[in-house]
Amino acid sequence: MVIVVKAGGRALQSNMENIARNLARMSGEGIVFVHGGGDVVTEYSKKLGVTPIIVTSPSGIRSRYTDEKELEVYVMTMAGKLNKEIVSAIQRYGGKAVGLSGVDGGLLIAERKKKIIIVGEHGRKRIIPGGYTGSIRAVNASLINQLLQAGYLPVIAPLALGAEGEILNVDGDQAASWIARGIAAELLVFLSDVDGVIVDGRVAERLTASEASELAKKIGPGMNRKVALASETVLGGVKRVLITSGLGEDPLSRISTLQGTVIGE
Amino acid sequence: MVIVVKAGGRALQSNMENIARNLARMSGEGIVFVHGGGDVVTEYSKKLGVTPIIVTSPSGIRSRYTDEKELEVYVMTMAGKLNKEIVSAIQRYGGKAVGLSGVDGGLLIAERKKKIIIVGEHGRKRIIPGGYTGSIRAVNASLINQLLQAGYLPVIAPLALGAEGEILNVDGDQAASWIARGIAAELLVFLSDVDGVIVDGRVAERLTASEASELAKKIGPGMNRKVALASETVLGGVKRVLITSGLGEDPLSRISTLQGTVIGE
Repeated sequence: MVIVVKAGGRALQSNMENIARNLARMSGEGIVFVHGGGDVVTEYSKKLGVTPIIVTSPSGIRSRYTDEKELEVYVMTMAGKLNKEIVSAIQRYGGKAVGLSGVDGGLLIAERKKKIIIVGEHGRKRIIPGGYTGSIRAVNASLINQLLQAGYLPVIAPLALGAEGEILNVDGDQAASWIARGIAAELLVFLSDVDGVIVDGRVAERLTASEASELAKKIGPGMNRKVALASETVLGGVKRVLITSGLGEDPLSRISTLQGTVIGE
Repeated sequence: MVIVVKAGGRALQSNMENIARNLARMSGEGIVFVHGGGDVVTEYSKKLGVTPIIVTSPSGIRSRYTDEKELEVYVMTMAGKLNKEIVSAIQRYGGKAVGLSGVDGGLLIAERKKKIIIVGEHGRKRIIPGGYTGSIRAVNASLINQLLQAGYLPVIAPLALGAEGEILNVDGDQAASWIARGIAAELLVFLSDVDGVIVDGRVAERLTASEASELAKKIGPGMNRKVALASETVLGGVKRVLITSGLGEDPLSRISTLQGTVIGE
């Protein structure tokens, strides 16, 4: 059984050792790990004196803009610091981990937005270059499969290669979903800082892809994107997606019991 | 024919595009690339406000000490920034590159100096922990061979895994030599910023391993270590080591003509 596990920066920062120890135990059994780490990137941007650029879309959504300096910190933090810390921790616990980024071997190919429309001062619209952010369009499954077959646990940082060979920043959850679909994983696990998808004050235990897709429209920001993506992932051929907590001493024990919210079937 | 090419930070900083274009052309033909980049690490240490610690050994040799903060910058710069810039450049020119560090899959295993003796103020000797620097002791050749067989060009950053699973900083030339011996390469190429080993004002074209070992005792710092290492590499089973310039438009064309200093045979 092939499983893709994704952990965001928060679960990793507070529980890296337990996650690494659990991963080490499953190393060589068809596990792929994808990590986030946006908060750590923000921390190092500050340390390096890179001022964040916040842009506002015509529909009012404010987001962080990735210019060349911001991308540099992103690459150093994601593919350098975090990736190698996770890889060395897994190996300290006896696993065989190989750290890669989506740039390596064209593992993830993304499309960069050439231009974006932003709303400047006095509400005036302006067109600016799209920055170094991409939407994933393809995955090189063969490289991941070769590493799995050789008994390694691939640890993947959310970078991608653009059409002109440039490095792009991509969303970690999207990266995990594309990889799970690309290698035909049976399960994609999102380790978050909550117990699952909360509906009416309780964890929703089982959702079909279409229920998840409907629910995504009604729930809070952050989790809505994860639930919509889980639905897409199931429709893309992955049997189940598990959204569960990455906290506690044995966070990956929730995989065998499917504790949390299961989307699929 | 399997060839390991090593380029230091200086050749890379001044000639990255040409080196990447040449590597892309040879991609899939049994090439492994090892990079340095100490100068770039120093630059980012300054940017991050990490004060370099210089220690003096009892024999009077002054060297930079790698504490935890310095190691962090080293990992971010080497395995993050430089490694992914090289990998994306090679792919922009049509090659298939996969970036790794010595930490990944236990590619390079090193021994950390537990304690070192330094000479402090007033000439007083002190024993301090050895810092995060290691001497390489083993190489995992199978991971590199698997990537070569799958048609990839491995691009390797000089990090290593210590006995306790910690990340260590290792010398790039040493890393290249160990890798060349580990995968039984026929040629190891050191791309430097000079045309070869200069003896009596000219490039020494051919040297046996024992001539190189003798010569190493008489020549200037920097090149002496490279020549001694070249001799060791040949004695370790690599047929030839080429020390040549990494500058100019087609630096890797010097490989087919063996232009520079050849140690071996």
